[in-house]
Amino acid sequence: MTTTTSIHDVISSDRVEGTSVYNAAGDKLGTIDDLMIDKISGQVRYAVMEFGGFLGMGTDRYPIPWNMLKYDTAQDGYVVPLDKAKLEGAPRYADDDVPDYDEAYSSSVNKYYGF
Amino acid sequence: MTTTTSIHDVISSDRVEGTSVYNAAGDKLGTIDDLMIDKISGQVRYAVMEFGGFLGMGTDRYPIPWNMLKYDTAQDGYVVPLDKAKLEGAPRYADDDVPDYDEAYSSSVNKYYGF
Repeated sequence: MTTTTSIHDVISSDRVEGTSVYNAAGDKLGTIDDLMIDKISGQVRYAVMEFGGFLGMGTDRYPIPWNMLKYDTAQDGYVVPLDKAKLEGAPRYADDDVPDYDEAYSSSVNKYYGF
Repeated sequence: MTTTTSIHDVISSDRVEGTSVYNAAGDKLGTIDDLMIDKISGQVRYAVMEFGGFLGMGTDRYPIPWNMLKYDTAQDGYVVPLDKAKLEGAPRYADDDVPDYDEAYSSSVNKYYGF
């Protein structure tokens, strides 16, 4: 896989919704529904993923720490090392019930994924 | 002014539209219309601003390098050191005519603001 990084590789926040997410085997898991961005630094902290019924995961939203995502230019999407077993116990919420991303919540998400 | 930084200070990309932007004197200049995000690093590169007729600037969109924005918790918005003279010659585009953010375009924006 050839991955080239350039200043060109920017995406509008308006277009983030719907960016595809794949597992390491190249299977499409779902899409990014939203991003949670640090207001001060401008760094994306979490990609909020929708698995769209993949593996029976339903329509809940899953916040994933940004540094778990690797961008793959060939697929024009992100790859995350996640499987059903890991996701079954993962932090999630309904689309219309977004939690307050306070320190307690953020810590619980980070801890779940080993950060 | 007291500015506290915590892991709590995240904002949904869905809610970025409409975040207020002020000048150093505290006058509201306009709002953020969009963010341009580095796909690889997850770092916001540009805030795309709308000045909403401020100072007769019209409805064009102005990409501003992210590191020019300072978040002010007291105003719950961003402060940028911009005045009319600087904006009159600044890179801009119509909302329905977004340029390709390639290296040439990005470089021209950065250069205009001295980066």
